[in-house]
Amino acid sequence: MTAPTNPSFEIAHLAHVEVYTDRFEESLDFFTRVYGLKLSGQDGASAYLRAWDDYEFHSLKLTRHHTTGVGHVAYRAASPEALERRVEVIEASPYRKIGWVEGDAGHGRAYRWEDPFGHVFEIYWDTNRPPPGDASALKNLASKFHAQGACPRRIDHVNLLGEDAAAFRDWAALTLGSRVTEYIQLDNGRIGGVWFSCNNKTYDLVCSEERGGGTGRLHHVTYATDTREDILRAADIMLENGVHIETGPHKHAIQGSFFLYVWEPAGNRVELANAGARLILAPDWEPVVWTEADRKKGQAWGLKTIETFHTHGTPPVTKD
Amino acid sequence: MTAPTNPSFEIAHLAHVEVYTDRFEESLDFFTRVYGLKLSGQDGASAYLRAWDDYEFHSLKLTRHHTTGVGHVAYRAASPEALERRVEVIEASPYRKIGWVEGDAGHGRAYRWEDPFGHVFEIYWDTNRPPPGDASALKNLASKFHAQGACPRRIDHVNLLGEDAAAFRDWAALTLGSRVTEYIQLDNGRIGGVWFSCNNKTYDLVCSEERGGGTGRLHHVTYATDTREDILRAADIMLENGVHIETGPHKHAIQGSFFLYVWEPAGNRVELANAGARLILAPDWEPVVWTEADRKKGQAWGLKTIETFHTHGTPPVTKD
Amino acid sequence: MTAPTNPSFEIAHLAHVEVYTDRFEESLDFFTRVYGLKLSGQDGASAYLRAWDDYEFHSLKLTRHHTTGVGHVAYRAASPEALERRVEVIEASPYRKIGWVEGDAGHGRAYRWEDPFGHVFEIYWDTNRPPPGDASALKNLASKFHAQGACPRRIDHVNLLGEDAAAFRDWAALTLGSRVTEYIQLDNGRIGGVWFSCNNKTYDLVCSEERGGGTGRLHHVTYATDTREDILRAADIMLENGVHIETGPHKHAIQGSFFLYVWEPAGNRVELANAGARLILAPDWEPVVWTEADRKKGQAWGLKTIETFHTHGTPPVTKD
Amino acid sequence: MTAPTNPSFEIAHLAHVEVYTDRFEESLDFFTRVYGLKLSGQDGASAYLRAWDDYEFHSLKLTRHHTTGVGHVAYRAASPEALERRVEVIEASPYRKIGWVEGDAGHGRAYRWEDPFGHVFEIYWDTNRPPPGDASALKNLASKFHAQGACPRRIDHVNLLGEDAAAFRDWAALTLGSRVTEYIQLDNGRIGGVWFSCNNKTYDLVCSEERGGGTGRLHHVTYATDTREDILRAADIMLENGVHIETGPHKHAIQGSFFLYVWEPAGNRVELANAGARLILAPDWEPVVWTEADRKKGQAWGLKTIETFHTHGTPPVTKD
Repeated sequence: MTAPTNPSFEIAHLAHVEVYTDRFEESLDFFTRVYGLKLSGQDGASAYLRAWDDYEFHSLKLTRHHTTGVGHVAYRAASPEALERRVEVIEASPYRKIGWVEGDAGHGRAYRWEDPFGHVFEIYWDTNRPPPGDASALKNLASKFHAQGACPRRIDHVNLLGEDAAAFRDWAALTLGSRVTEYIQLDNGRIGGVWFSCNNKTYDLVCSEERGGGTGRLHHVTYATDTREDILRAADIMLENGVHIETGPHKHAIQGSFFLYVWEPAGNRVELANAGARLILAPDWEPVVWTEADRKKGQAWGLKTIETFHTHGTPPVTKD
Repeated sequence: MTAPTNPSFEIAHLAHVEVYTDRFEESLDFFTRVYGLKLSGQDGASAYLRAWDDYEFHSLKLTRHHTTGVGHVAYRAASPEALERRVEVIEASPYRKIGWVEGDAGHGRAYRWEDPFGHVFEIYWDTNRPPPGDASALKNLASKFHAQGACPRRIDHVNLLGEDAAAFRDWAALTLGSRVTEYIQLDNGRIGGVWFSCNNKTYDLVCSEERGGGTGRLHHVTYATDTREDILRAADIMLENGVHIETGPHKHAIQGSFFLYVWEPAGNRVELANAGARLILAPDWEPVVWTEADRKKGQAWGLKTIETFHTHGTPPVTKD
Repeated sequence: MTAPTNPSFEIAHLAHVEVYTDRFEESLDFFTRVYGLKLSGQDGASAYLRAWDDYEFHSLKLTRHHTTGVGHVAYRAASPEALERRVEVIEASPYRKIGWVEGDAGHGRAYRWEDPFGHVFEIYWDTNRPPPGDASALKNLASKFHAQGACPRRIDHVNLLGEDAAAFRDWAALTLGSRVTEYIQLDNGRIGGVWFSCNNKTYDLVCSEERGGGTGRLHHVTYATDTREDILRAADIMLENGVHIETGPHKHAIQGSFFLYVWEPAGNRVELANAGARLILAPDWEPVVWTEADRKKGQAWGLKTIETFHTHGTPPVTKD
Repeated sequence: MTAPTNPSFEIAHLAHVEVYTDRFEESLDFFTRVYGLKLSGQDGASAYLRAWDDYEFHSLKLTRHHTTGVGHVAYRAASPEALERRVEVIEASPYRKIGWVEGDAGHGRAYRWEDPFGHVFEIYWDTNRPPPGDASALKNLASKFHAQGACPRRIDHVNLLGEDAAAFRDWAALTLGSRVTEYIQLDNGRIGGVWFSCNNKTYDLVCSEERGGGTGRLHHVTYATDTREDILRAADIMLENGVHIETGPHKHAIQGSFFLYVWEPAGNRVELANAGARLILAPDWEPVVWTEADRKKGQAWGLKTIETFHTHGTPPVTKD
């Protein structure tokens, strides 16, 4: 693969994901009370949510919609200058551009463009902080640890479905300057999934091959917990609240994170994950290649990947 | 403070620390059997050790010496070009240079220079990998998880004693391009300690104010564990092996890491730490300032800092 | 020591503790929202609280009072017949008896008597279950895991201050039929503290030597968590809620439990503890004797016992 | 069901299990180096193993044999008198008796009898302690925490296959005086499995319905860990050592324990489990009944029970 192994460092980090829901009140109740995000603000269209140690106004924008799925994915640039440089690169690229938009309650103006499958991305520099009045007893935390629900610490990554993961890889390498840290090489020559990072996280973006006939769909959004115990505890919370646990807790072979997947009330898949102390610090990291033979071993400790993991995405694919 | 908040990204990461011991066999037994590092190689002068998921040949060089303390601290550059640029910056700086050295079993040629207190630093690009024959069942790990002793995952940071932490701060900002993530502002106007990072880790380098009359001394070296439970378990291992536990397990207020400090047989302080999912992703992170009033609250959960933490360093200060 | 090592098994388990508070509303808020007990019921005088997996109506009776401390300590008998046999033993003993009382919202009639220092104890058979409507998704749990606050699983033990721990030992062996599992032998010949169990728990009752000049005072009440991580998490919850953390988290040398001690708003000391998989299964368990020399090593990992641990009890001792 | 809910307390606890292996050296290497038991002694026929906090000489007797499975299951009586009383009860029972045997390196004379399916049980009073020279730094531990392999704390339970679980239930209630804590009620009127306890543990003995055509077979032997993290860590140890992980880590619905099942080199199934703070303290505990409808929900967090769990037992059933 030709994607860069050393990131550009012009994009600082994944900032937020806009998730659509056709059951807004139920989804909001789930994300705040059960999943444990904080509500930074709300207007008629959307709720702005964040994890307790997310330093920006929001990392999840939950938006009323006629269906489910992803509205857009946002990254924060590493500096105002880096933002300009990235926009130049994107403008010169062959991909579909949307251009500058105003921003919202969470951040200032942003530049938007699309991946090959219609997912909308944006990058911006000017950002807003969490609302005041929520200071932690520890001054190095973004806000108070409120111990509500599963209570993850920060946004971690988003996984998108794409009809051609190799095409997505080229798009991400060029426009985001991300490096590929791991990927699945199928026997038929296609790429089954690619994991990207724009910083020292092991990944912040994934493209999984779409096998359900949809386009521009969401596979899942993930928040990071401090411990694996947080995830075991979260499983009990999901159980007691009647939330559908799709699979886990278990440990991924790919990327090695400890995971739990559930479906929020509108059907969007949401993950909680913990990577332990794993980071990609090597500047010359070679992407790890997983073959179909590797994948047949299942997850790290042998759990077979559940069938819906390959078929369920949001929005659902309508048959007509 | 004027140190950059956005790192240069020309230095990839802390790579290894050379630690001196006047009880080589006992120290080596401690670091391998009890602390749980792997022995990559050994010659008459030094043993080359690494954590099980360190991707380089070694992250700890344990060297026979007439006393204890730190031999040198090494960083890996982000690319061959970045190495050249950093060397240019250092050459133009007012600090004492040593120049290019050959490297050793673990890496190729390296450029060496000193901080204001005589600690030797080096940067390099060419590196060696762990010896073959130790592959993990999971192909994204650097070597097999061998479950020996405390068994941390990777090197985390080094803490050096310096007579003037503000001078160290200027030195680190200029020569390493590191950013300050947190620091202690004493009532007397001096800086009590400064925490630095050259990447998304919350810190990889610390300078603590020397109060014992020494110069160029080591405060401690730290490896990261995947979980806090690893650290609780390590405390039992230290106890059963007669290792002096200085303080912990507890949680730092500064940087929020869960910690355990012990003294290896020759007296060098060694830490195990876990930061949970905490990273510094904000490109415009404002250094967190801790006052003496803040410090009077003790560690995160109120533990008073133990007296030896302010006085014990290696080598011991000789009175004459 | 002459106390039995094999318990009588006529007393099934510690059932509940009545705790006095002169700040009822604040204490109730602490025990429900922060500490994470459930409110089973309430009348003008008392609130009846339980942990989520306590199978009885309540394990903590929080009662409005002009001061703090312990109202009474209750044990459940192993059978109606065992209750009668125990009452016969107590009636024949030299200790002060109160006799049968009516019971309350939580249980039926109970027999009451006193230890040598005026602490009131009771035993009973007829008991009430938690209020309906709170069933867990798992049918072997007493009620729903509600994930509120520190959220311990069940009551664990109570620690009482007594002017003569040896006298308490004789009292407990005779009237409760408890065995001594560990104790502190002071150099002056006195007993510093004694740990008792009436079943396979390592202890459910402790008498610590009173050194503050009070009488009939409470040292602390403890609930058990499933994991040590629950206790680390609880420490953050206490910190964010402004609760005074007295000491911990750390591991006791005596009994080996992982602990956290805090003071609830009225000043009563409350602990969270986890014993791991430790049980006393040996029928011929020899009490473990801790000398002053042993105690000088501090807690399991070396933490020095905090001074207030030897002086703070409730109610406070009034000077006149 | 008519089994007693209140145990007799004449049997103190499950003491040891004799496991047969036709790959003695490999099994011994597994149980000591990987699973983390300690070798108390060895003769030509058997190795005597114990967990680090087992207080008796051994809790696992590993015996060379032409095949796999269970040799015998041993319980320790609560007192010499209780032993005599139990033997009287057994002698008067309709079950097959073997009578008194000499004992071995681990304990004195023992009385042996059989369950309805030919599994051999024994009870004894006189016991031996772990070999000297292995004292822990903490005097309340049976021996040093050696931190080898998965390193469980103590033996927990044994699960036997029986052609008629209801018949086993009657046998256990009568001869052991055990109570039933949970069981599976099949739609066809049969009992799918029964969990027994003779003390405050939630269970120490299980009978699962034999569906593979064998007789007197072993389902698995289990040791208890202090934490769930120990089990997650053990899964990595099994993975790195090429041990077959059958299922887990996950949480059982029945009994609620966190589990990991592996097959030791000769094929015997071995579990690691953690029950958290769960105990059966209620003297009038009502057995929890699980229906087939309940079981269709899978394990606690939804994991489907793996097929081999219903078919694999030792020794293998020979077809002829």
